[in-house]
Amino acid sequence: MNMSFLQELFTSITQRDALQRRLGAKKNHSDHHDLVAACEELLNSDGEAASIVLASRALEIYRGLSGDEKKAFFECLARQFAADPDAIDRAYRFYRKDRSNRNLATLFEVAEPRRQELLRRLNLAQGATYELVLMRQDFLTLMKEHPDFKPLNADFVHLFGSWFNRGFLVLKRIDWNTPAAILEKIIRYEAVHKIEGWEDLRRRLDARDRRCFGFFHPAIGDEPLIFVEVALTKGLPDRIQPILANDQYDIEDPVLADSAAFFGISNCQVGLRGISFGNFLIKQVVQELKQELPNLKNFVTLSPLPMFRDWLEKTYRQDPTQLTPEAQAALAQLDDPDWASDEARADQLNEVIRPLAARYLLKEKNSAGLPLNPVARFHLGNGAELHRINWLGDVSDHGMSQSAGLMVNYLYVIENIERNNEKFTSNGEIVCSSSVRELSRNGRKLFQGEPEK
Amino acid sequence: MNMSFLQELFTSITQRDALQRRLGAKKNHSDHHDLVAACEELLNSDGEAASIVLASRALEIYRGLSGDEKKAFFECLARQFAADPDAIDRAYRFYRKDRSNRNLATLFEVAEPRRQELLRRLNLAQGATYELVLMRQDFLTLMKEHPDFKPLNADFVHLFGSWFNRGFLVLKRIDWNTPAAILEKIIRYEAVHKIEGWEDLRRRLDARDRRCFGFFHPAIGDEPLIFVEVALTKGLPDRIQPILANDQYDIEDPVLADSAAFFGISNCQVGLRGISFGNFLIKQVVQELKQELPNLKNFVTLSPLPMFRDWLEKTYRQDPTQLTPEAQAALAQLDDPDWASDEARADQLNEVIRPLAARYLLKEKNSAGLPLNPVARFHLGNGAELHRINWLGDVSDHGMSQSAGLMVNYLYVIENIERNNEKFTSNGEIVCSSSVRELSRNGRKLFQGEPEK
Amino acid sequence: MNMSFLQELFTSITQRDALQRRLGAKKNHSDHHDLVAACEELLNSDGEAASIVLASRALEIYRGLSGDEKKAFFECLARQFAADPDAIDRAYRFYRKDRSNRNLATLFEVAEPRRQELLRRLNLAQGATYELVLMRQDFLTLMKEHPDFKPLNADFVHLFGSWFNRGFLVLKRIDWNTPAAILEKIIRYEAVHKIEGWEDLRRRLDARDRRCFGFFHPAIGDEPLIFVEVALTKGLPDRIQPILANDQYDIEDPVLADSAAFFGISNCQVGLRGISFGNFLIKQVVQELKQELPNLKNFVTLSPLPMFRDWLEKTYRQDPTQLTPEAQAALAQLDDPDWASDEARADQLNEVIRPLAARYLLKEKNSAGLPLNPVARFHLGNGAELHRINWLGDVSDHGMSQSAGLMVNYLYVIENIERNNEKFTSNGEIVCSSSVRELSRNGRKLFQGEPEK
Amino acid sequence: MNMSFLQELFTSITQRDALQRRLGAKKNHSDHHDLVAACEELLNSDGEAASIVLASRALEIYRGLSGDEKKAFFECLARQFAADPDAIDRAYRFYRKDRSNRNLATLFEVAEPRRQELLRRLNLAQGATYELVLMRQDFLTLMKEHPDFKPLNADFVHLFGSWFNRGFLVLKRIDWNTPAAILEKIIRYEAVHKIEGWEDLRRRLDARDRRCFGFFHPAIGDEPLIFVEVALTKGLPDRIQPILANDQYDIEDPVLADSAAFFGISNCQVGLRGISFGNFLIKQVVQELKQELPNLKNFVTLSPLPMFRDWLEKTYRQDPTQLTPEAQAALAQLDDPDWASDEARADQLNEVIRPLAARYLLKEKNSAGLPLNPVARFHLGNGAELHRINWLGDVSDHGMSQSAGLMVNYLYVIENIERNNEKFTSNGEIVCSSSVRELSRNGRKLFQGEPEK
Repeated sequence: MNMSFLQELFTSITQRDALQRRLGAKKNHSDHHDLVAACEELLNSDGEAASIVLASRALEIYRGLSGDEKKAFFECLARQFAADPDAIDRAYRFYRKDRSNRNLATLFEVAEPRRQELLRRLNLAQGATYELVLMRQDFLTLMKEHPDFKPLNADFVHLFGSWFNRGFLVLKRIDWNTPAAILEKIIRYEAVHKIEGWEDLRRRLDARDRRCFGFFHPAIGDEPLIFVEVALTKGLPDRIQPILANDQYDIEDPVLADSAAFFGISNCQVGLRGISFGNFLIKQVVQELKQELPNLKNFVTLSPLPMFRDWLEKTYRQDPTQLTPEAQAALAQLDDPDWASDEARADQLNEVIRPLAARYLLKEKNSAGLPLNPVARFHLGNGAELHRINWLGDVSDHGMSQSAGLMVNYLYVIENIERNNEKFTSNGEIVCSSSVRELSRNGRKLFQGEPEK
Repeated sequence: MNMSFLQELFTSITQRDALQRRLGAKKNHSDHHDLVAACEELLNSDGEAASIVLASRALEIYRGLSGDEKKAFFECLARQFAADPDAIDRAYRFYRKDRSNRNLATLFEVAEPRRQELLRRLNLAQGATYELVLMRQDFLTLMKEHPDFKPLNADFVHLFGSWFNRGFLVLKRIDWNTPAAILEKIIRYEAVHKIEGWEDLRRRLDARDRRCFGFFHPAIGDEPLIFVEVALTKGLPDRIQPILANDQYDIEDPVLADSAAFFGISNCQVGLRGISFGNFLIKQVVQELKQELPNLKNFVTLSPLPMFRDWLEKTYRQDPTQLTPEAQAALAQLDDPDWASDEARADQLNEVIRPLAARYLLKEKNSAGLPLNPVARFHLGNGAELHRINWLGDVSDHGMSQSAGLMVNYLYVIENIERNNEKFTSNGEIVCSSSVRELSRNGRKLFQGEPEK
Repeated sequence: MNMSFLQELFTSITQRDALQRRLGAKKNHSDHHDLVAACEELLNSDGEAASIVLASRALEIYRGLSGDEKKAFFECLARQFAADPDAIDRAYRFYRKDRSNRNLATLFEVAEPRRQELLRRLNLAQGATYELVLMRQDFLTLMKEHPDFKPLNADFVHLFGSWFNRGFLVLKRIDWNTPAAILEKIIRYEAVHKIEGWEDLRRRLDARDRRCFGFFHPAIGDEPLIFVEVALTKGLPDRIQPILANDQYDIEDPVLADSAAFFGISNCQVGLRGISFGNFLIKQVVQELKQELPNLKNFVTLSPLPMFRDWLEKTYRQDPTQLTPEAQAALAQLDDPDWASDEARADQLNEVIRPLAARYLLKEKNSAGLPLNPVARFHLGNGAELHRINWLGDVSDHGMSQSAGLMVNYLYVIENIERNNEKFTSNGEIVCSSSVRELSRNGRKLFQGEPEK
Repeated sequence: MNMSFLQELFTSITQRDALQRRLGAKKNHSDHHDLVAACEELLNSDGEAASIVLASRALEIYRGLSGDEKKAFFECLARQFAADPDAIDRAYRFYRKDRSNRNLATLFEVAEPRRQELLRRLNLAQGATYELVLMRQDFLTLMKEHPDFKPLNADFVHLFGSWFNRGFLVLKRIDWNTPAAILEKIIRYEAVHKIEGWEDLRRRLDARDRRCFGFFHPAIGDEPLIFVEVALTKGLPDRIQPILANDQYDIEDPVLADSAAFFGISNCQVGLRGISFGNFLIKQVVQELKQELPNLKNFVTLSPLPMFRDWLEKTYRQDPTQLTPEAQAALAQLDDPDWASDEARADQLNEVIRPLAARYLLKEKNSAGLPLNPVARFHLGNGAELHRINWLGDVSDHGMSQSAGLMVNYLYVIENIERNNEKFTSNGEIVCSSSVRELSRNGRKLFQGEPEK
């Protein structure tokens, strides 16, 4: 499977080289007015041959723009490239009179912002899809300060949803036989547990007890969209440090593993934010792994609990009195940066923090009624079960400061995924193990006379 | 390039095998009500995992439906899966009051027929893209008798336009090293000059003086979308029979060729009608050929003149008196099926038919002001020039009855393509050689005192 | 695995095209004297660059020679390109005096026929390996009438043994996704049960219940060396006709099969006769199949019994009286060409022929003490067991006239292969099932008072 | 071409993984007696199935041996696995009586050391070819101290010559799209100008102005045999430091280059010493480059002059008086380690050193009458011409101490290669440019009244 990597992805080295040369070209002296003019010309063009040339030219101008010029261009897009109000009024009048499918089709057509057709036409140029992803990356940065850009975002999302639909994604194993051009991107894009360099990467891809898979898109070539790192283990792992260590091997032969632990999922393309792949990725990777290693019994994550420490701080500092004195005393230990290395203190904290984490995961919801914690939301939304909360699972500085050292196992039980997914998305129900439930019950006792919600 | 054929296209034999087994499954006993119910469930589903399963189920039911049941299903789609009128009214009221981008976005969203979201969700299933292409194939057949289905067609076109945009198409050379599974489709799909079997195909792909290229789509696998057959020749060819002959070689070594003649372009997927690829195909093939064979100077078609004979019959029979007596006498020869083998008659006809063909190509327009002849419309629309009209270029029964034996060379001059394309699409101007212009002038003299339009 | 077919085998289409053009070149007017001169020059050349050119030239001359000229060339090779007797005498004298390793090495070196170095140097030319295989094919034909050519044959075998050693062979699945250029060779090379054309081939490669694998050699490109056809079945098959039938499917899904039946093994390169691949092929195919289809329990052949009918005729006609009158009467039925369709006769014959076949397989030996039957010798020599003799297993004309309609199952029991192989090769012991043993015992009773040998 | 890299080389990741696991296995407790016994058993084995198992076992024992045990094993090989003297005597007697081809064949056969058949049989095991290369690597180290091992070396060379003949080598471009598993070997094996790490490698492979090609062997998988590094430049380069610098680009687009400079050729497998590939490599690389970049006019090396400084020291110190006083004075500057940075001194030295280098290259010969300098011997032997001697071409410590800072351009003029090759190999004639000849003439004047040899 891995063997056909290059074939499927690189249509031609020459093309890529050419692209890189082009991308690296010197800034031109065009401004956003030139670009807007080029876009108008592209939209007015009748012939496809001419359109391709115009699209290439427009994208070239865009690449040469400064940040300010880009902002000005997006402003124009949002304002000038909307739909024509008169056409909408007219189409609606017809539709109002005769609610025929035909009139509806016309209304739908004229209500479409011209930006969408513009983006579709820009996509005609060679290599345009990836350049539009980069354009949205610029755009998302600017949108933070310009909420009026949002309508344009909807257009990007609409089109990217079509272009990056699941059927077009290609799952590829990434290992030490993967081209270096892709591996250096894995180093760069790893978002969960930093890869320190080529030697570190080599360990992460060691065929003995690691696997890595990514989604690629044929029109984007060797740019991964998302990838997942997997550790093959005996038993469910509860700590990340042994997995990240360069010199430790739980097993020397993958056939000895009974568990596959997903310990890092990294989205690679900022410009594709909001287009979800992770769900499909995990499911396909589970299938691949089962086929390669029939001995695997458990598919589980080893996930951080980001923002838990924040939540803890807020809850604890704002109103510590809601907790029992014992709980308050225990939590006070957190102020000491070295608490983890003091066994007694750590034990004392363990009694409080894991139960609170269980409650945090099960009870704290966002406005949509889904778990506050984004990682929980993702995996539970994919049909996983909340399986275990691991004490001192990540003792790195980052792990301590984000997750209070906890790591969570979410379990993917193949035959339950669909049912769990449905329960969760329809009424927010979280499937969890009895041990987490027990922890949560214990958590209740940490509160001063608080009745269970 | 050709070497990576399989790699790029077939993600896995196993998957295809599985698909074929599934496609070949026995008919189920569901009817269109079941399918509509499954579609509603799919549209109402919240979770992606569940959606994939529901989409697969819906497509499976569809595959098992009879023709009548399919018709009933499309009727439901056209009627029940439109947009919600109340939501449109409401959104329009808001937009009317405040013509903000946001209100426009809402209007656009609610005006979208639910069918589009349904098709997008169906596309989540494994292998769904191709099954939806087959669904549209069924649909187009039924639409002929049910014009009220048309709105649904617009939805197909809208989505297919996104899914099959140019950037996702992969150009592949097709030759004797191509997998048999693809070659048998080339035999089946060849639409211009029938391929009689494997031996005939072998000649068409002979590396000495033939080339063949096709567009493929990664999500459609080994199903070609369109392909073009090329003869490498010395000089521009004027007759098709020597090219189709199994035992004739104009050259034995491709480097000796100065011309590449496109003698057959076949669309393969009825379900993709209206999504144009031919334009891009020709341009990319020209690039490939120039790279492989730098000696090539001319890129030209050897094209039929379909419907010319019909036009001739109609014009001639309805009002023969508009022609000069000599022209009338000559055309009368056409009634004799063997005229081509009688040199004197053939010469007499030549004097009349080629000039008339030149006028037919240059003067006869459809309602959009473009050439009546579809092949001319296609190549001229791609930026080609009308170069030569060849007497007795196709003496097969089909060629005689369709094109009165004529074949046309359209010339692709790389540096003029864009300009020609623009002239043609903006004001219908046809670029043609002086010889064709001369022919057309001669044609004028065949008419009884008719002043030039 | 199959996906990387082209990649592994064809270094470049262009190269092959060029080769074919070269191979198809017109005959030159050189004779064997020119070739011998070119060979001498090649042997005397000091530089590698020059050697490559000289080797190419020599092979080109060879290709242009007539049959008679080739014969003359081989005569020269056998006579003039032997070792130098004086050098041998000298080296032997030294070795005789001092039996050092060094003197032995010199003796070995000078005793090597110059032909071997010549063949090695010819092999420097681009594509030479395959041309030398073709040269040996010519040679073997000529050797039949010229036993004095035999020393040259030993040189070929010596070198081919090195060049085609097992580690350099690549196993490839052959199916409908295999390039047509290879498939047409499968049609041509099938030696056991003729393939009637592309439709017939398609059935033989149907992924539902057939498999086909071949050995390829990287330097020989797309020319298969040997291939085996496999039927996936429920239970061990006893008849070949249902397997060859185009429209019968034992199973529709390969996972339902419990048995893999090897029903045809074809050597493709006459020029490689005597270099054995079949043994390795079967073993690797068994491994591939087990990996793809873990449900497979039995690996078995469905083999003809060539020359059995001949043996029967000879034994029966030369001395019918050694058989019992009943056996004689039964065998007399064989003279009627339609006996197989007459149930009574067939039954009568069954009682005689299968026991005789069992004895033929178990008792009739060649001068080396191995089974007279070559197919039995091959499979038993590979470590298979003689499992079953099937009545009316091949009712084709060829099957009736060669094997008296019988087909034999040889069973490959993975864990016994080595042990069986050793028993067989060390003392000719044949491992067989109790039913075949029983048949053989019955066979004894057909003889007039003959005591068991 | 590059795209099919993995496909052609790695038959399967799994196999390699398995191999690595096996190679990494713990030492067993066998000694060389066990191995010799296993080898005898292998030689005596009749069946192929059994042979494969025995070969695997023998290689496994070998891998587990200590250095001393390996030495003992090679001693046994050299002594016990020679040919049988009695058989040789007998065969010679027959041959003496009747000098037939047949008797010669027998003599040749019995004179072959049993070691050769042993090595051939060992090569039956999966992955054995590479393990035998590693075995020879061990062997070559030991042979330095044990000249009596040499006969065994001849056997290795004999067989490796067959197994690694030119037709089986596959040329592959190596670039940033090459699998990391191969790239890390490039870093490790680079022998001329050390690669400092992945970033340095990236520069060496930059598609803008660098190329790298290697030879691979299908049975050896991803282990390169030899590779060459190429710089694309405008004009012939005379200094190595700008080429090795990470941040300098002579050109940004390869099509601008008129010259391809080979600046590093590295043999990768110690165990293949004596099997020459470099000659073929350069010629094929020149072809590849010409095809990709038709603008290239010059193919040249930028080569060190190893051992020149040594030669200079010896000649200069042993007998300085043969030089003119001026030359003596100039050469004395060499003792100052910083001479290169002092322009006056450097100029003074330039006048002496380059002429002496020209004489060194043209006049100093080894016992075979070929140039003393190994790099010159290699390139001139390949048909290159001695083109230019560059002052301060390599100012690294290594370059100064080895080559007195000089670098040499050897020019490959395609149409002269064969002729040069022949001149050089037949009578040691060196083709050189007029400027080098001029330098050499100047060199003569540096000698005290020495008449030209």
